[in-house]
Amino acid sequence: MNKFAIQHIVDSSYCFPVSSNEIVLRLRTGKDDIVRAQVIYENKYVIGECQKTVDMKKSYVGEIFDFYEVKLQLEDTRLAYVFYINDGEKNYYFSEDGVTETYDFTIGFYNFFQYPYINDVDIVKCVAWMKKAVFYQIFVDRFNMGNKEKDTSYVNLKWGDVPNPKSFAGGDLKGIIEKLDYIKELGCNAIYLTPVFESISNHKYDISDYYAVDKQFGTNEDLKELIDKAHARGMRILLDAVFNHCSENIEQFRDVLANGKNSKYFNWFVIDGDKVSENRDNYETFAACEYMPKLNTSNKEVQEFLLDIGTYYVEKYNIDGWRLDVSDEISHTFWRRFRDRIKSVNQDAVIIGENWHDANNYLRGDQYDSIMNYAFTKLCLDYFATGTKNAEQASWKLNEILMRNTDAVNNMMLNLLDSHDTHRFYKEVGENRFKMKAALALLYMYKGAPCIFYGTETLTYGGYDPDCRRCMDWDNAKKDGIYSDIYELLHALSSIRKEYDLTDGSIKIYAEGEVLIVENVVKDADIKLLINNTKDMQTVGTTQVKPESFYILLNGGVLING
Amino acid sequence: MNKFAIQHIVDSSYCFPVSSNEIVLRLRTGKDDIVRAQVIYENKYVIGECQKTVDMKKSYVGEIFDFYEVKLQLEDTRLAYVFYINDGEKNYYFSEDGVTETYDFTIGFYNFFQYPYINDVDIVKCVAWMKKAVFYQIFVDRFNMGNKEKDTSYVNLKWGDVPNPKSFAGGDLKGIIEKLDYIKELGCNAIYLTPVFESISNHKYDISDYYAVDKQFGTNEDLKELIDKAHARGMRILLDAVFNHCSENIEQFRDVLANGKNSKYFNWFVIDGDKVSENRDNYETFAACEYMPKLNTSNKEVQEFLLDIGTYYVEKYNIDGWRLDVSDEISHTFWRRFRDRIKSVNQDAVIIGENWHDANNYLRGDQYDSIMNYAFTKLCLDYFATGTKNAEQASWKLNEILMRNTDAVNNMMLNLLDSHDTHRFYKEVGENRFKMKAALALLYMYKGAPCIFYGTETLTYGGYDPDCRRCMDWDNAKKDGIYSDIYELLHALSSIRKEYDLTDGSIKIYAEGEVLIVENVVKDADIKLLINNTKDMQTVGTTQVKPESFYILLNGGVLING
Repeated sequence: MNKFAIQHIVDSSYCFPVSSNEIVLRLRTGKDDIVRAQVIYENKYVIGECQKTVDMKKSYVGEIFDFYEVKLQLEDTRLAYVFYINDGEKNYYFSEDGVTETYDFTIGFYNFFQYPYINDVDIVKCVAWMKKAVFYQIFVDRFNMGNKEKDTSYVNLKWGDVPNPKSFAGGDLKGIIEKLDYIKELGCNAIYLTPVFESISNHKYDISDYYAVDKQFGTNEDLKELIDKAHARGMRILLDAVFNHCSENIEQFRDVLANGKNSKYFNWFVIDGDKVSENRDNYETFAACEYMPKLNTSNKEVQEFLLDIGTYYVEKYNIDGWRLDVSDEISHTFWRRFRDRIKSVNQDAVIIGENWHDANNYLRGDQYDSIMNYAFTKLCLDYFATGTKNAEQASWKLNEILMRNTDAVNNMMLNLLDSHDTHRFYKEVGENRFKMKAALALLYMYKGAPCIFYGTETLTYGGYDPDCRRCMDWDNAKKDGIYSDIYELLHALSSIRKEYDLTDGSIKIYAEGEVLIVENVVKDADIKLLINNTKDMQTVGTTQVKPESFYILLNGGVLING
Repeated sequence: MNKFAIQHIVDSSYCFPVSSNEIVLRLRTGKDDIVRAQVIYENKYVIGECQKTVDMKKSYVGEIFDFYEVKLQLEDTRLAYVFYINDGEKNYYFSEDGVTETYDFTIGFYNFFQYPYINDVDIVKCVAWMKKAVFYQIFVDRFNMGNKEKDTSYVNLKWGDVPNPKSFAGGDLKGIIEKLDYIKELGCNAIYLTPVFESISNHKYDISDYYAVDKQFGTNEDLKELIDKAHARGMRILLDAVFNHCSENIEQFRDVLANGKNSKYFNWFVIDGDKVSENRDNYETFAACEYMPKLNTSNKEVQEFLLDIGTYYVEKYNIDGWRLDVSDEISHTFWRRFRDRIKSVNQDAVIIGENWHDANNYLRGDQYDSIMNYAFTKLCLDYFATGTKNAEQASWKLNEILMRNTDAVNNMMLNLLDSHDTHRFYKEVGENRFKMKAALALLYMYKGAPCIFYGTETLTYGGYDPDCRRCMDWDNAKKDGIYSDIYELLHALSSIRKEYDLTDGSIKIYAEGEVLIVENVVKDADIKLLINNTKDMQTVGTTQVKPESFYILLNGGVLING
């Protein structure tokens, strides 16, 4: 047996409670390296004398590892356990002390694995509404101008022209309100808005007043109206919490600019020296943007300032959660306090970090609920766009991403193909409609909540910022009263998610030949996605899968194909 | 290269900040599998264009893995990195996407490893006084009776007789006060007391009033006096926080016994049904002890009750911290709140969990500072008592234990050979004085704070509870004005720790032949422990190491031998 490959980490994505008496255990092994994995377990106070044994199932297959899984039903949740592994020749025990050929349970209290007790407050739960959420991300300035009466003197981009970094197209909150029904019909029931607060930029990630909606976008009343009207339609609204940094124009930074070390806000920022230098190079910023000074979130006053903002919009405006900008550069301590405050106001408000990387340390139930799943984005690029991964390699990666976190977190992941921070996926796949559609099908059938960037349904094209932030192409959203095939696909995919609660089911991801298969088994329904991302005919069992095609099957019958 | 062995986990014991601009990175590889490990790194906003490279050093060797380490000094702490590994034949990159032969830094933002920014509040720091702490654990009833005036009608054990589970010997707080100078001379500057609050048992882990010192042990004034007199001598006092469960005699449980579901305390416990059943088998307890009902620490009222107790003794009695009984069965949520409250009263109060197993999830800076290091205990049993590990195997395990946590946590570990919950180590080693002394030398030279159980210095013998809780053998503590050789050894070992701050140094643990070597390099001092735990002469370099002997060398000269 390959001892180097064996892994289990207590109280992690390898071992987590899912209810007051159920614990999921996972074991990593070398690929195809063993023939049987079992868990030997009992209440930790009696395991020295007697033990139960249960088989694990190979549930996820990665590039070089297999992942076995079992859900234990426990009467006494003070769980002690070791793994018992057979490689076809020999049996091995695997405990905290590693792989051994014998194991003495009578002194197991020194080195068995354990989940010492299921405390209800430690169970990571899926926020209820997230189970059926389908997100629509809106970059406000480019989505729709609703208020035709407003002062549009700031608008410098003709709707439809290609934007530059300084373009203003006039989109606003009224424009979104106008389109709520459109978004709902598309099948989206949640909206994530890039920032809406006072700021001189078009993206508004440099906020100068967190309590005021930017005039270009409307008023605080418009925001309230948008949220209320969304809620009336059963839709949810997420705002963008830009807490890592602010605008140089914010009152507190202006005070520091004027008064240096004598400003009561001096320690709100991270400044090397007694004042901000003439050439503006001695304070920390977002990236290298001197107009976005970094907030010192280790400072308790700053924490309180931001926590108040966070709770204010949940409490007073009933927003349904926050997407957290550049959240990985902010302290764990802050996010723990943030979660406590937000959840004490609304347990169902969802907290979604912008972490492009493995964020397990933020996703243990004490900080965020979820992240923007850019690892999924990257896999879709590798499989559909660059072709650096084939179907089998894609299946491995899709499994490995799931193994980073617990089930509840996987079910809340914000999965996306693109965003305001990437190229448009449609450009990445060379405007290949099949690839675009198949990727969307994968997005909707994977564990987690799909999130589409506005304009996906009209096949909006564009490179990196600002090119990905082009104006919504309303002319092509509905042509001659007919929605596009992409629109229809998104609608159909949403209907499946509406009908079946995929969070309740098990997922199995694998490849047969060059066909990628994602199978969700939910109660009596078996929903299977097959993707042939090659130019050749492929065969799965007795079924022929045409070149560049995909199918969604319900209990074997075709629901969708494209 | 053995890809299965390669491991790195972001924001963990593999990657942690140690100051505002320094980060330690560790990489696990197969043993002797590679010839060079490097880190390629830069500020994450520029790593796409340019990178720095630094060599890692093989710092710790385990049974089947090597651990490479490097401390990065950073100007910009927004760190992105990948590993660059040479196995003698080829170079490999290791990123979040695993081991690859090529790596494209321009799209590294999708899969480099990162520590996104060092936030000061997230740095786990070693509590200052813990750097030089040497603990003495006292089981109060058996240590010393100081108050000769008290009602001793409860005493049923003649001092020196072997105790049974119901024995009371009469030890008390006054008795400890009397012996503070004795403990200090022994070289201990911190005392951990098993529980002192109201309880009908001799161990007092079943508390009926958390605000009253048990009459057998004295008064609350005695406790205050003990703490003040300890502090006057530069000594610290830790109490035992028994928060997992309480006594059936506590007011709240008695109310539940009387009123069932109508009691306002019903949800303070975990009861199946509307009332406690006649045969007392329908509520959760510590282990299977019906007289110790488990407290429901998911209940916010219970949390407040316990948090108030926790802060009360830190604030009003100036205790220096808490040892947490059965802490692993209490929720993470509770311990996070506990830490916040305790540290807000005294940043230097230390929090030490009773987790017998890998407790990394409690030791990330948001819950405990430390645990009782029973993994170290087990290694000492394996090496000195049962002989199931030889010198080399012992060195592997000692290294592996260190790799579980960050440096700051390792420096705060409460390392012990035995306690009130184990056999006496002297019994375990078959009363072999060499083994006892060599184990103590190892205890004092390993990373972390040594903790000796009262009576270690008199070679107290005893099996499992209650046998390990025999009365302190004062007759042999000092005989004819002369302290025992064990006492002198402990004194000498403490002097080394007093003179050299081992937390500041690096540790190297390895074996040469059958000699176990623990080398601490602190500034200009090289302090090396050599243990020959065999009956044969061994050779290290040109030095002969006698059978069953140990040496502590300072820059090559013998400081201690035994």
